[in-house]
Amino acid sequence: MSEHGLLVSAPGKVILHGEHAVVHGKAALAVALGLRTFLRLRPGGGERLRIHLPGVGVRREWDVAELSALRGRLTADFDESKSPGVEQLDVLKEFAGIAADASAPDSLAILAFLYMCLAISAKYGDVPSVDIAVWSELPTGAGLGSSAAYAVCLAAALLHACRAISCPLKDGEATARWPEEEMSLINSWAFQGERVIHGNPSGVDNAVGTWGGALRYQSGKITSLKRVPTLRILLTNTKVPRSTKVLVAGVKEKILKFPAIMNPVLDSIDAISQECQSVLEAMPTNPSPEYYPVLEELFDINQHHLNVIGVGHPSLDRLCRVTASHGLHSKLTGAGGGGCGITLLPPDATPLAVEAAKRDLCACGCAEHCDILG
Amino acid sequence: MSEHGLLVSAPGKVILHGEHAVVHGKAALAVALGLRTFLRLRPGGGERLRIHLPGVGVRREWDVAELSALRGRLTADFDESKSPGVEQLDVLKEFAGIAADASAPDSLAILAFLYMCLAISAKYGDVPSVDIAVWSELPTGAGLGSSAAYAVCLAAALLHACRAISCPLKDGEATARWPEEEMSLINSWAFQGERVIHGNPSGVDNAVGTWGGALRYQSGKITSLKRVPTLRILLTNTKVPRSTKVLVAGVKEKILKFPAIMNPVLDSIDAISQECQSVLEAMPTNPSPEYYPVLEELFDINQHHLNVIGVGHPSLDRLCRVTASHGLHSKLTGAGGGGCGITLLPPDATPLAVEAAKRDLCACGCAEHCDILG
Repeated sequence: MSEHGLLVSAPGKVILHGEHAVVHGKAALAVALGLRTFLRLRPGGGERLRIHLPGVGVRREWDVAELSALRGRLTADFDESKSPGVEQLDVLKEFAGIAADASAPDSLAILAFLYMCLAISAKYGDVPSVDIAVWSELPTGAGLGSSAAYAVCLAAALLHACRAISCPLKDGEATARWPEEEMSLINSWAFQGERVIHGNPSGVDNAVGTWGGALRYQSGKITSLKRVPTLRILLTNTKVPRSTKVLVAGVKEKILKFPAIMNPVLDSIDAISQECQSVLEAMPTNPSPEYYPVLEELFDINQHHLNVIGVGHPSLDRLCRVTASHGLHSKLTGAGGGGCGITLLPPDATPLAVEAAKRDLCACGCAEHCDILG
Repeated sequence: MSEHGLLVSAPGKVILHGEHAVVHGKAALAVALGLRTFLRLRPGGGERLRIHLPGVGVRREWDVAELSALRGRLTADFDESKSPGVEQLDVLKEFAGIAADASAPDSLAILAFLYMCLAISAKYGDVPSVDIAVWSELPTGAGLGSSAAYAVCLAAALLHACRAISCPLKDGEATARWPEEEMSLINSWAFQGERVIHGNPSGVDNAVGTWGGALRYQSGKITSLKRVPTLRILLTNTKVPRSTKVLVAGVKEKILKFPAIMNPVLDSIDAISQECQSVLEAMPTNPSPEYYPVLEELFDINQHHLNVIGVGHPSLDRLCRVTASHGLHSKLTGAGGGGCGITLLPPDATPLAVEAAKRDLCACGCAEHCDILG
């Protein structure tokens, strides 16, 4: 670690196609978002480890020796290929004064930090005295991979602090990526952090957070798309709260109730992901407008399918209607039932039309960000 | 024929599920509508045959002998199992002063009348001097089977006038049905009338017009549903004009463009028709409200699918939204792209809610009728 510390960042993600269907063995396409999480790692003082997460109101610190002793109490071995043990996490919760059933972002962020810190130091040696600060452009709980971006930043910073990975910055360079094998190591430790936070995550979010770009995920297999054009997408948060767990259960119930009606819909969604992947891989980096009508049609079709499987919401219908009135095509992204929607912005969409759409979205109570994916 | 003549009526139809998918070999469910076409047959005078169709502004009459001579000019034999010949129809058009490419309802109505009249008399002997008047509660060109109801009434009246079928009315009875085998004869001649009007109709409309109730149609095979409960349905005409031919071609184009995405949607629609049939056959004649949620869910799903295959329209979206705001579920029926929509009215929908929905539909420019199917 240099004396000036290190600034790491990782992007959030959106699902272009395949949300929910992915739970039933179909493909999903996830792409990195222009919104990022940033981590600043600086040499600490007084043999203490400090973490500051202004976004969730966390400021904590521990003695390096205290953490070392805690690690000794955790008998199970730490291994980035295995899920964190329930007992290990219980010990960490007790240590940090976190309730056994805590699920608030601040509690889970502290827990993930402690777990990753101890597990990484168990494998690569003590994490030295450092100050870590993390802030994000990503809203939490909106299905945009904020926890994964946090875990990716933490993994990179802690592995770097322990000298398990190199410093990729060459003299005179302002930014750099780690080499591929070190990225893999960062990704597998970030996945551990995601497991602490989410229990049984798919691994897509941390993969997008680590590598960026676009990924296809199916039945546990993650593959990068050959090429990803730069897509402009308007991301809109309906701010309607929802439970992913309840929505996923509802879809399952519908499939069990009407298997002959619902299974073909999942097949159709799978084919949409496949078609979208083919179109994206055939597009040049800065695509001209003629590539967009197919992408827009796929958005429209999938939005109808997501309504069929029961994860729509009046706020999302409104979002689609408002953007359609400006000639723009939208779909929900992620769990649905509220949450976020994405709107394709073709290169020939005039700034005036986009601004008018945003204004109308604001008028119907949606907060929004404009974003670049790529 | 009694001296007081005969009053015949036949219902229109709506498609509950399977429109468009039926073109691609899937099942469709059609049900008889409470809106009917009526025909009054009375003994005529002066050896003339008179037809009066006030709805399309037709009042024509011919000498019985003149029609008999015309029949002699048509060399091809008339057969209810074969399509009317192009040359036969050309002769009839010339005789009636109808342009060769005429497609207006009045021209087609006269042509169908003349064809049926001559073909039936060729088989069963001259149609005697009669006055025929036909009027209808059904709008023409709205996909509600008005031409089939007309053809069914004409077939029954002409066959009756020629004594090819019995008079089903017993002493003291006000209404009656013909026996099954005579209904089959009426249906096959009505199909001939439909062929004159539509060229290559499926035969569903005249089957529903003849037998009423509910029918399943798939790949040319028509079967009656075992039981049909009485369903209350609000029928709304968006009055948005559209071309069935263009819509059917658009669906075919979408299937060719995205076969892997669209074919599963057709499979899902097929399963919806199957599921709906099972539910209807399991329902008692006067079903209680608890049977309706499944029917409503099937309406919603199919409406999304119809949007996916490209036959939706903003007027239909509005119709669905307006009725949804009153807790009622709607879908387009028939060709889509405008045309008619149907709204399920469960027995527990209050008259107040139904009236409020109708008022809101009127306010957004939709004419509507409330109707009973069964």
